[in-house]
Amino acid sequence: MSMQRIALASRPKGWPTADNFRLEQGEIPSPGPGRFVARTIWLSLDPYMRGRMDDGPSYAKPVEIGGTMEGGTVSEVVESNHPDYKPGDIVVGRMGWATHGVSDGEGMRKVDPSIAPISTALGVLGMPGQTAYVGLNRILEGKSGETICVSAASGAVGAVVTQLAKIKGMTVVGVAGGADKCAYVVEELGADACIDHRSVEDGKQMAEKMAQAAPGGFDCYFENVAGKTLLGVLPNMKPFGRIAICGMISLYSGNTMGDQNQLPLLWRTLLVKKLRAQGFIVSDHMDLMKPFLAEVGPLVKSGRVKFRETVTDGLENAPEAFLGLLRGENFGKQLVRVGADPS
Amino acid sequence: MSMQRIALASRPKGWPTADNFRLEQGEIPSPGPGRFVARTIWLSLDPYMRGRMDDGPSYAKPVEIGGTMEGGTVSEVVESNHPDYKPGDIVVGRMGWATHGVSDGEGMRKVDPSIAPISTALGVLGMPGQTAYVGLNRILEGKSGETICVSAASGAVGAVVTQLAKIKGMTVVGVAGGADKCAYVVEELGADACIDHRSVEDGKQMAEKMAQAAPGGFDCYFENVAGKTLLGVLPNMKPFGRIAICGMISLYSGNTMGDQNQLPLLWRTLLVKKLRAQGFIVSDHMDLMKPFLAEVGPLVKSGRVKFRETVTDGLENAPEAFLGLLRGENFGKQLVRVGADPS
Repeated sequence: MSMQRIALASRPKGWPTADNFRLEQGEIPSPGPGRFVARTIWLSLDPYMRGRMDDGPSYAKPVEIGGTMEGGTVSEVVESNHPDYKPGDIVVGRMGWATHGVSDGEGMRKVDPSIAPISTALGVLGMPGQTAYVGLNRILEGKSGETICVSAASGAVGAVVTQLAKIKGMTVVGVAGGADKCAYVVEELGADACIDHRSVEDGKQMAEKMAQAAPGGFDCYFENVAGKTLLGVLPNMKPFGRIAICGMISLYSGNTMGDQNQLPLLWRTLLVKKLRAQGFIVSDHMDLMKPFLAEVGPLVKSGRVKFRETVTDGLENAPEAFLGLLRGENFGKQLVRVGADPS
Repeated sequence: MSMQRIALASRPKGWPTADNFRLEQGEIPSPGPGRFVARTIWLSLDPYMRGRMDDGPSYAKPVEIGGTMEGGTVSEVVESNHPDYKPGDIVVGRMGWATHGVSDGEGMRKVDPSIAPISTALGVLGMPGQTAYVGLNRILEGKSGETICVSAASGAVGAVVTQLAKIKGMTVVGVAGGADKCAYVVEELGADACIDHRSVEDGKQMAEKMAQAAPGGFDCYFENVAGKTLLGVLPNMKPFGRIAICGMISLYSGNTMGDQNQLPLLWRTLLVKKLRAQGFIVSDHMDLMKPFLAEVGPLVKSGRVKFRETVTDGLENAPEAFLGLLRGENFGKQLVRVGADPS
């Protein structure tokens, strides 16, 4: 029996290309004592993976050249020497860009298929959803009556921020790429307004559109993108506003936000408006996993919190799907169907 | 009887010059009902005043052209129709760059001359000292065993941050301009190390010196300056570090920190190190005035917290002293002696 995996072939300079990845064949490993083997059903593709392709200092180790690309997966246990896992169990964990993986159970969690489709364990009920929950509640401390700007509002994280903020009683201005995504953000997710960043030239125009959408300014900004969206937000932040820095997808592939040095502008804005800007990563806040699932699980099951997925078929197509994700071509959570649903 | 005041003659472009100020004569006003007249003894000069000379949006209204330059003062009441103030009382407030002022008592506080020299109500026991206290305790949440970097460490705010951090049990690395100031920061204020920013070309060299001084990195950074000091701090921040943004004196007169756009670097550092950066202004934290005076007053009286003043004589010399402050020529708290001590 053979398995497939996608290895990092080389490190990208700026935008990654298909050449940075390599499909490899191998044998399915045997589990060994205390371990289990699982076959991948769903692979999650996420912007943070771009960072793992570089070897500069970051909050996580880079993928080694020749190593399997990292990623979250939903899998079915097929062979087990682990007392807690038996064949047929559905598990969510980090088995990477591969058709099969071995685990000792560390970092794995069983998925209850009765709550929602198992793919949601990688999206609205998984790391992206929990990221939204942590950012909105712990980092931004968003409150009823406040106004929030959510960048990448149709994305896997932003869509959950948007909906949870509305449920909280906040006014939400989303930013997304394209008229169809913006329509989705307003009509399906319930945002009060959505700005199409493709219709906006620069930070100045973005600031004007934001001022129209939220004349009173923003108490909170959920940062996924940087670039002109960030430049538009700064003049629209209210005194004592909070910024949760979750990602900066527009910078991941070499975009420098223009030649002008905008650090003084940013720094001065933080001072004179007495803002708080804070970076965060969901893995530092795993204590919120249980309250997150307890609160958001029923909202997903009842349909009050919606989700949307873009599915690419076949592990061999993961690199192309990932490049599309970086270009904003996905709509909602980007997944790769690696194997069939459990029978 | 005549009085003098310094008016804002014109708005500076970049560095201010003596031409931006004008000395004017006038009559000493009479107090009117419920008010008092006081004569200025000490005028405080502070970097924030540079911002008030511009008419861009900021956290405070700009000084109008022809208006009296704003500033904190220690004064003696000379005539009073106010029930709480009598001639001879020493008060601290904001009477501006003038020999005399009128007040209804709003924003005024009586000074107890038995604790320390009355000039300290503008420095170590006034707004700069309280700024240090708020930044260190409320914004940075500095703790025993942590390491802090303090910029402008010999200045009116930085010197208090340095000493209070040492009393708390923190390791302190100061940054100051010149060997004499650095010697003062280490030998008098008790910092563990001090880096002379004049001996450092750029952010990269600054980062190297900081890494030598604090090989484990910084938990906290007290920001007074921006510029190469900030660029040196970023790679030395520890994960989950905190930055209190109190000022950015190197930017106040048009320094742009170079042509390269450093916003992406800053933003990425906040994300990957999960830092918190927060701007603050002491006037939003007046609830800490009482605990500040209760805690730091005795430390000043006993000599455990030291202070240093640069005194310029005569209101007419205030503009030149202010320009020197912006160039870093003062050593400790910059004061102008406007009138004689009370008899």
